[in-house]
Order: sequence, then C-alpha cells, then structure tokens
Amino acid sequence: MFYGFIDILGTIAFAISGVLVAMEKRLDVFGVLIIAFVTAIGGGTLRDLLIGNTPVVWLRDGTYSITIVATVVFAILFAKRLKYLRKSLFLFDTVGIGLYTLVGVEKGLEAGLQPLVCILLGTITASFGGVLRDILCNEIPVIFRKELYATPCILGAASYFLLAQFPIPENVAYALGIVVVMGIRLLAVKFKIQLPNIYRG
Amino acid sequence: MFYGFIDILGTIAFAISGVLVAMEKRLDVFGVLIIAFVTAIGGGTLRDLLIGNTPVVWLRDGTYSITIVATVVFAILFAKRLKYLRKSLFLFDTVGIGLYTLVGVEKGLEAGLQPLVCILLGTITASFGGVLRDILCNEIPVIFRKELYATPCILGAASYFLLAQFPIPENVAYALGIVVVMGIRLLAVKFKIQLPNIYRG
Amino acid sequence: MFYGFIDILGTIAFAISGVLVAMEKRLDVFGVLIIAFVTAIGGGTLRDLLIGNTPVVWLRDGTYSITIVATVVFAILFAKRLKYLRKSLFLFDTVGIGLYTLVGVEKGLEAGLQPLVCILLGTITASFGGVLRDILCNEIPVIFRKELYATPCILGAASYFLLAQFPIPENVAYALGIVVVMGIRLLAVKFKIQLPNIYRG
Repeated sequence: MFYGFIDILGTIAFAISGVLVAMEKRLDVFGVLIIAFVTAIGGGTLRDLLIGNTPVVWLRDGTYSITIVATVVFAILFAKRLKYLRKSLFLFDTVGIGLYTLVGVEKGLEAGLQPLVCILLGTITASFGGVLRDILCNEIPVIFRKELYATPCILGAASYFLLAQFPIPENVAYALGIVVVMGIRLLAVKFKIQLPNIYRG
Repeated sequence: MFYGFIDILGTIAFAISGVLVAMEKRLDVFGVLIIAFVTAIGGGTLRDLLIGNTPVVWLRDGTYSITIVATVVFAILFAKRLKYLRKSLFLFDTVGIGLYTLVGVEKGLEAGLQPLVCILLGTITASFGGVLRDILCNEIPVIFRKELYATPCILGAASYFLLAQFPIPENVAYALGIVVVMGIRLLAVKFKIQLPNIYRG
Repeated sequence: MFYGFIDILGTIAFAISGVLVAMEKRLDVFGVLIIAFVTAIGGGTLRDLLIGNTPVVWLRDGTYSITIVATVVFAILFAKRLKYLRKSLFLFDTVGIGLYTLVGVEKGLEAGLQPLVCILLGTITASFGGVLRDILCNEIPVIFRKELYATPCILGAASYFLLAQFPIPENVAYALGIVVVMGIRLLAVKFKIQLPNIYRG
C-alpha cells in the first residue's frame, strides 16, 4: 500500500522531469508525452530486460501508463505554474530514486544475482530513465556531467548489503538503504558536492 | 501470403527511408546499411524484447535481413532516382505503419496484455525504427517534433478495440484498424495537420 | 583458460577506449565509468537480449564489472601516460573484436539461428559497444563514418561458415575466423583502406 503510493509519486516526479526537459526543447504534445513516458519507465524497463523479467513491468500493469498520461495532461495545462513546484518535485524525485534503487537491488537478488551486480541494477533502475530522456533530447546525459546522481544510488545499495550483515531485520536494512540514497542526494545538492575533478589544467 | 507481401513492402519502405537519412548525413556504405537495418527492424525488435518474445523476429527469419541488404544495394545504385520514388515510398511507408501497428497490437494480445498497453506496443512497433534512425544520426527524432506520425497509430489501434466491441468479425475490425491508421496519416500529410501548439508566445 | 585471458584483455581494451572518449568530452568520474562500462559490455548485452539469453552475461558473472572498475581507476590515475599505450591498445582492441565476433557467431548457432543472422550477431557483439559509447557521448557513431570496423567482423564471420564446409576441425575454422577478422582490420588500418565512397561530386 505505502509502497504503491511511493511508486506512483516516483513515477509522477520522473514523468514531470521529462515534461520539463521536453518543453525546453519545444517538442510537440506527442514528443512531450513520449519523453515523460521514457523518463518514468526507462530504468525499470532496462532492468527487467537485462534480467529477462518479461513482459516488462509497465506492460504487465497499465497503472503506470495511465499515471503518466494523466501527469502529462496536468503538466501541460499548468505548465506556467510548474516552476513553483520545483522544490516538491525535487523531493518526489529524491524519494523516487531511493525507492527505485532498492527495488532494483531486490529484483536482482530474486533473480539470484551477486551483490555487486545487484548494486549496478539498482543504480540502473534509478538513473537510466533520465539517461534515455537526455539521449532522446540529443544531450549528453546530465548524470555524466555534473549532478551527483548515481553515486547516492551506489552508496545506498552498497549500504544495504553492508547492513544485511548485521543482526537486524531485513526490511530495516532495506529502509535504511533507501534513507542513505535520499540522504546523500539531499546533502550533495544542498552543499553542491561534486565528484572530484579529474582534469587538471 | 498477402500479409507476407505487405510485410516485405513495409520493410523495403522503412529501409529506404533509412538510406535517405543516412546518405544525407554522408555516412559510408556500412553506415547506410546499418541505419537502413535499424529503421526497418527497430520497432519490431523493441516490441519483441519488451514482451520477451525472443529470439527477436529478424533472428528467427533471415528474409528480413536479405530484403534489407538487397534494398540498400538497389538504393545506393539508383540513389539519384530515389527522389522520383518519394511518392510511392510515402505510400509504402503508410501501408507499413498501418500494418505494423496492428501486428504490434495482436502480439500484445497474444501475450495476454491489457488493451491500453497493446495500443502502446502497436505504436512502438510502427514508430520506433524511425526514432532509432534519428538517434543514430544524432538528430532529435522527427516524430517528436513535427510530423503527425504516432497519433494515427494510437487512434488506429484504439479504433480496433472500439470496433471489437461491436458484433463484427474480428479480422474486419483488424482491417479497419489498419485503414484508420493509414487514413489519418494520409489526411494529416495532405492537409498538413499538426498537433496543437502548446507553446504560446 | 586462454579464452578467459583474451576475454579479459578485450574487456580492458574496450573499457580504455571508452575512458579515452569520455575524458575527451570531460565527463565526471561517474560518466567516465559508465561510458567505459557500456563500451565494454554493450555488444554482448545487446546480443544476449536479442537471443533472449538472460540474465545477460555481466549480470551472471561479476568478473566483468570488477575488471572494468579496476581498469577505469587505473586509466584515470595514469591518464597522462595512456597515450603511450595507444599502440598496445589498438592490438588488444583488434584481438577483442576478432574474438567477440566469433563468440557472437557461436552463441547464435547455439540458439539455432541461421548463418546469415549469426554473422550479424557476431558483428553486433564486436561493434555495438562502440556505437553505444558514441551515442552516449552525442556523436554519430564512428563506425558509420570512417573506420573500417564492421567489415572485418562480417568477413571473418562469413569465412568461418565457408571454412566449416571443408573437412577441417571446427575449432580450426573458428580460430581462422578470428584471424581473418584481425588480419583485415590490421591491413585496413595499416593501408588506410576505406569503404568505397558512394557520394560523387
């Protein structure tokens, strides 16, 4: 129940981030819709394809598609006010990547994969939608350039495996993993932490 | 038999549209071939991957690959005359998207998916090859910008589900769905209908 | 054993080629890592997805991920010296595409596919990582433009099927196929052989 609610919030947040980028590129209505769709379901789709978990999740459950279409209609109608929502959007997005990271880890474990590749799967689930959004809009994906986006996912997923070594209930480790992703992401944005610069001079 | 014939015509039309874009970008022979290939089989491939219908269709049946290679050889040899074929090409392409849309819908139904996601699958089957073509050529996909391309697919696929509610044979509904896709596409191009502009001022 | 050694060398070579392109684009540490990763595992991943051979190879075996991370760390630390390695890198890369081409062919045969599509699968395995690298870096893939890269793969894979017609052991045909890929690639680079120009005037 709570899970479903967060999942929908995450989908909405990712869809709106797609709408914002697509409108900046002045795409038509269909273009905006498809970019929103791809941003929201891209990560989970790639994860399901890599594992072989098909039909992929949004084909099995129409709720995702309906949520995204409704979000896009709403976002286009209230386009001018979207900017006032940026702060809430950022929060949804942060909750979304936290949750999606751990969902990806869990799916990897269900498929019998090793911890290291489960961490990768979680990070892919959380970040690949944004990568696809940027490729389709003909940009170098933003997460490759300046935002500290994937690092929180990697650290959060890793901390889950670390915590699972201790005698604590598994779903507590799971929840703490989500909190670590969100916490590092929030701190990174608040204090403008960036990855070290590897180019000198 | 008739189905196979149309399928080959659609493959040829999509392959030639790939050749035209690749030659505009002045790619080499191999680049032209790969873009033609991706344009022709991209939509069906993504559909098969998403459903989990693997090996994907052109791996199971070599006819597609042979058709595409022959088309590219022909297109390069007669490159200068291709422009006189533009009208026929447009017709092939229109027949192709009509057929591919409904094939995609049918594959979704076979996999036990809901109508809404079947409509999406049909649209993906018909339009994703062109999206991949444009991404590989480093362009924002044309269907996101100005051509009314995906909308006919969505409406045609939806009309199939609508018609299937009435007491008419299923293959009549199927054929009418194809006709709706082609009709809207032809009208949209003839009367230069565009999606509503969501950017004012 | 020998196979595993070459496989690791190929992975390293592809990963470093990713690092070089990513650093030219001045991506951050994570961007460099992901581009290296995608370059090294992109071809095998697409092959596995198309065949339906999931979870894909690098999810089943963590060695690939560890090799790539170690390579990237090493490459960033010794970034300034990488240029002296270009010649060795080119050799690794050439061995890599030779081997990857025939591995792709073999996986296709195992899945019961026809020779023609096996040749395509081999070529995809060897070249798609580089295509993804260039798409993510917002470039038209280099293999579509000037380097004679896919042609050696196609000819080497075809020569394997040709040789398999003769009364020679299968693994000799396999090894000769690899040699053909490497030989044509080396000759093409040494004598700057290019595909015929299809644009006159």
